[in-house]
Amino acid sequence: MELFSFDIQADDPQTAARAATFTTAHGPVETPLFMPVGTRATVKGVQSDRLHELGAQVVLSNTYHLFLRPGSELIADAGGLHAFMNWDRAILTDSGGFQIFSLADTLRVTDNDITFRSIVDGSWHTWTPEDNMRIQQQLGADIAMQLDQCAPYPATREVVAQAVERSIAWAHRCRAAHSRTDQALFGIVQGGVHLDLRLRSVEALAALDFVGYGIGGYSVGESHEEMFQTLPAVAAALPHRRPRYLMGVGNPTTLVRAIAAGVDLFDCVLPTRTARMGTAFSSTGRMNLRNAQYARDFGPLDAACSCDTCRNYSRAYLRHLVTTKEMLGAILLSQHNLHYLLDLTRRARAAILAGEYAAFVDDWMASPAADDY
Amino acid sequence: MELFSFDIQADDPQTAARAATFTTAHGPVETPLFMPVGTRATVKGVQSDRLHELGAQVVLSNTYHLFLRPGSELIADAGGLHAFMNWDRAILTDSGGFQIFSLADTLRVTDNDITFRSIVDGSWHTWTPEDNMRIQQQLGADIAMQLDQCAPYPATREVVAQAVERSIAWAHRCRAAHSRTDQALFGIVQGGVHLDLRLRSVEALAALDFVGYGIGGYSVGESHEEMFQTLPAVAAALPHRRPRYLMGVGNPTTLVRAIAAGVDLFDCVLPTRTARMGTAFSSTGRMNLRNAQYARDFGPLDAACSCDTCRNYSRAYLRHLVTTKEMLGAILLSQHNLHYLLDLTRRARAAILAGEYAAFVDDWMASPAADDY
Repeated sequence: MELFSFDIQADDPQTAARAATFTTAHGPVETPLFMPVGTRATVKGVQSDRLHELGAQVVLSNTYHLFLRPGSELIADAGGLHAFMNWDRAILTDSGGFQIFSLADTLRVTDNDITFRSIVDGSWHTWTPEDNMRIQQQLGADIAMQLDQCAPYPATREVVAQAVERSIAWAHRCRAAHSRTDQALFGIVQGGVHLDLRLRSVEALAALDFVGYGIGGYSVGESHEEMFQTLPAVAAALPHRRPRYLMGVGNPTTLVRAIAAGVDLFDCVLPTRTARMGTAFSSTGRMNLRNAQYARDFGPLDAACSCDTCRNYSRAYLRHLVTTKEMLGAILLSQHNLHYLLDLTRRARAAILAGEYAAFVDDWMASPAADDY
Repeated sequence: MELFSFDIQADDPQTAARAATFTTAHGPVETPLFMPVGTRATVKGVQSDRLHELGAQVVLSNTYHLFLRPGSELIADAGGLHAFMNWDRAILTDSGGFQIFSLADTLRVTDNDITFRSIVDGSWHTWTPEDNMRIQQQLGADIAMQLDQCAPYPATREVVAQAVERSIAWAHRCRAAHSRTDQALFGIVQGGVHLDLRLRSVEALAALDFVGYGIGGYSVGESHEEMFQTLPAVAAALPHRRPRYLMGVGNPTTLVRAIAAGVDLFDCVLPTRTARMGTAFSSTGRMNLRNAQYARDFGPLDAACSCDTCRNYSRAYLRHLVTTKEMLGAILLSQHNLHYLLDLTRRARAAILAGEYAAFVDDWMASPAADDY
């Protein structure tokens, strides 16, 4: 297959869902797909051979964090991010724009650049869109994201509109500065909860003919219902034959619904972050393993799950690990939660290929798992 | 093989080292052997399938910690410790005596029992030797240890002598109270740095004909040289055809030397504890991965090592994980350090079987690895 081709195998007859294969320099990526997050070049607590076993096809990492530590030049000298983190399948790097606007304690944004302070050592840094492209090309992921500005929520329409226009301007500059042929560059749609701003963003980015499109600025505090008031129209407005990536969304029910709206890719820290707090996704809804009700429950975490954690360890043991703050608790629950989302997108893909995604959504929404919001 | 038989395949011609097979209800145990420590029913950060891959044959767990959380009755109801922690090879439980004397903030010891306060919730508990046997039989390890009293270091000769006599009296009571036929009971030699007290302890315990013997009360603060002033004579005085287990010792060079003195089994938290602090054993001596010298070192952790960590990850990456406090750093270094000690005892065993252990010790002591003390 041609590099970065997005080959759609099936368009679901009753929903906007599609099953496709995106070709990268590190293998094919079958969508819809959840992508585990490895912010600092490691999916927290999970070794790369386990990620292989779990069926992970793309791992995310973050330009902001890697730029600060250990530095993009060091990673380039290591042979790029794949060699550095021992991951031989596809990698996507987020540009770091989101982190700068959400984590950095002090910043200055102009049309030309962003100035921000390191959360590590307080040092000051300035990025133009061109700087960001240089850094992401040093990191060497298969998919790079444009530098964008994500407006907070809530924000006035004016603030959101300015973020949209600035992101469009930076999209042009990123597109012009990006030259690495083994790396795809995705534009990022902004516009908050305003459909007209979203569509303005889509139109401007589509004119640049990106390899794929991130849908940013959701899951920043608004309700799920607010998101779904505009998301289907945004997805539908994007080029049909390009992958669509809903950034930062990993709630199981939101995934199921967003796939029906035509989204192909997802990422979220939720599975590993909640695991470290002792929480597991399950077919009967979310479970907090700290709960005393599991103390003498010798059954599997989720009887409907085929992952290593569910096949080999009991709820009572997992609760013991979580309450005693043993690392293995976070490890086993992280693997389970990642399996849960990867399995969910695999099953969604199978349903789309069978032309039965509408029934899949109905079944999901009627199940106890749909309570997981 | 008969249960708990200790079949010596080779006595080294020039040292007191021996290679043997100890038969347990969960498979044969080939000695000399390092046993990873899983204090609270988990080797910190390492899943049981990894322990299998590393060649672990016995995992230790601790009666004191498990008694407090999650409780020995709960573990019995789970089907015993093997089922609870998903480990199908041999398990050894320490009696918890050492923890009570080293961790508990308040205690009362009489000839009859020990009263101690939980480090978890401050609750008070009293154990007779019989209570301890009941608890260890509930846990269901393959090897249980007698309840003993470990004198602190330094201590007056009188304090040490009293601990020896009390441990002997408790050995009698444990022996009488222990009835589980699929579980071996080991006595524990005490006596600090006093050879005559040590030999008194050995003689009294040997008269009880235990299945094996722990050598306790070393590695509690005395120097390595002080330990080796008495350890060879203590090991030599123990029954030849029974396994000898030097408790709490895991320093590589001490292992090599103690094997030459006739010790068969070892355990220590050192490999996993130092890993969590960013330290690795290596063929060139101990390495602190926090050290800036490794920042751009893209070579393997230890070029002489065949473990998964050394084959797949660079020093620069490990340093990145350690300095950013990523869980994966502790995980990868723990696996490496465990491999290092397991491989060391495997190689020691091969040298003994070849009748060349004296040369093995000489080679070790002349190597940079011997600096690791």
